[in-house]
Amino acid sequence: MAYQQLFELETYLQAKKVQVEAALAEAVTLEQPASLRQAMEYSLLVGGKRLRPVLCLASCELAGGEPRLALPTACALEMIHTMSLIHDDLPAMDDDDLRRGRPTNHKMFGEAMAILAGDALLCQAFEMVAGRSSGVPAQRLLAVTAELARAAGAPGLVGGQVVDLDSEGKRVPLETLEFIHLHKTAALLEVSVISGALIAGAAEALVADLRRYARNIGLAFQIIDDILDVTADSATLGKTAGKDLLTEKSTYPALLGLEASRRSATQLITAAKAALAPQGEAARPLLALADFITTRNH
Amino acid sequence: MAYQQLFELETYLQAKKVQVEAALAEAVTLEQPASLRQAMEYSLLVGGKRLRPVLCLASCELAGGEPRLALPTACALEMIHTMSLIHDDLPAMDDDDLRRGRPTNHKMFGEAMAILAGDALLCQAFEMVAGRSSGVPAQRLLAVTAELARAAGAPGLVGGQVVDLDSEGKRVPLETLEFIHLHKTAALLEVSVISGALIAGAAEALVADLRRYARNIGLAFQIIDDILDVTADSATLGKTAGKDLLTEKSTYPALLGLEASRRSATQLITAAKAALAPQGEAARPLLALADFITTRNH
Repeated sequence: MAYQQLFELETYLQAKKVQVEAALAEAVTLEQPASLRQAMEYSLLVGGKRLRPVLCLASCELAGGEPRLALPTACALEMIHTMSLIHDDLPAMDDDDLRRGRPTNHKMFGEAMAILAGDALLCQAFEMVAGRSSGVPAQRLLAVTAELARAAGAPGLVGGQVVDLDSEGKRVPLETLEFIHLHKTAALLEVSVISGALIAGAAEALVADLRRYARNIGLAFQIIDDILDVTADSATLGKTAGKDLLTEKSTYPALLGLEASRRSATQLITAAKAALAPQGEAARPLLALADFITTRNH
Repeated sequence: MAYQQLFELETYLQAKKVQVEAALAEAVTLEQPASLRQAMEYSLLVGGKRLRPVLCLASCELAGGEPRLALPTACALEMIHTMSLIHDDLPAMDDDDLRRGRPTNHKMFGEAMAILAGDALLCQAFEMVAGRSSGVPAQRLLAVTAELARAAGAPGLVGGQVVDLDSEGKRVPLETLEFIHLHKTAALLEVSVISGALIAGAAEALVADLRRYARNIGLAFQIIDDILDVTADSATLGKTAGKDLLTEKSTYPALLGLEASRRSATQLITAAKAALAPQGEAARPLLALADFITTRNH
């Protein structure tokens, strides 16, 4: 990608991110109980790439929609993502103490509050779409709500997390690993892209192309996450990566090796971009986002 | 209530309950992971009064709607209720081992699965309304989704549970107790009644009357729960209820005394029924449900 384009993407992402963060900062309007609001906002307003909301806004724009109309849905996507991080970090799940360098929600507010803050964010996500999106035809919002419910629930995030927990400490086949990632990561990225287009009233053919784009970047995203985990671990542990791969929990690098994983991610990104070829110039932000996913280092 | 009417109510409730249970038995269509489906169905299909779905169907009928159209929403209400019981029973919350005489969800499937089964039921509730209700105008379903999200989330169930946990072992003022019950119990009963009417396309005036009915029975329901808890405790402990009242966690009987609590419940039921006076004969099932709530003994 040329320097000029990179610069433009940075500007584009930054502008969208600012827009999303302003909307998120105003989203939790709950007054009582203040402790619940605090726990919700602690994890929601912590920053991060805001990749899901930005994908939603960019896809709305590509489909000819006013991104402003997709802003409540963009917030909903970040709420669902945040909720899944809060619940996954719980002692009964991955038992993590730190998230983005700060104490996890349950370390800060206790387990009960962390469970409830997650539940509250999940509910508010649906309220954002169904109750706080003005100017969008009801039929479109209903379709987004249904897609979102599937992506967040048993056929998506939750199902992926169940299989992930069940696979801990086991060597699982590539098929299982793909199931986990398609559900745990790709499903929400897919609805992030699709929802923006649905809100804009995109034609079925465009929605199908965007779905293909989204599935491919979703899987690539997770492979790259796995690669980054491994390379980070190697550096920290000061051991050769190869040895760790044999003993660690199942990841793409562990199952395929580092080089094959990298090739696989690159192929997926290429396929993702090919899906948007019919859109020409208008697809540039989404193409750039696909590149951003491949080249990110955290 | 005359014997004839009681008999008819029994028949009515039973018929609606059968309809709801048949729909619930088919609702969880998830195939993989099977363990997640099992955990969801374990708590969802356990039985119970199915009061919330029946209120929804009865209210739809009162507003002139076809109850069949409200069936997915009726299922959604039971999913949200079930999810709140699963999460409330967790060790980090009320730490209960038994629910309706069977091991609680986390005792059966572990904490991680219980948290996830609850999350999955919550998501599927929204999918039922937004994605599986055919024949209902999108605008109505969107309004139901938004009401449901508020009732289940921070402004409803979740907010009530936060204040409830925070009040444990404390003597709280009546105001706090009302906040807990309005949020933890009345909010979901309210949306149970309202949603049926919204699906039927009820006029605003009827929705307002139903809301008044629902708030009153919601609060009465919880006062009667408190009374039953106390009387059951007294019998079990073999102590005078009066002594327990002073030491127990805040309940209506503890704050107002048993007699005043009973009077308060009766007044609320009377007010609930008065709200439906303009509906005449058509309101009979909902009036009978209000009586059912007052006279239940479990």
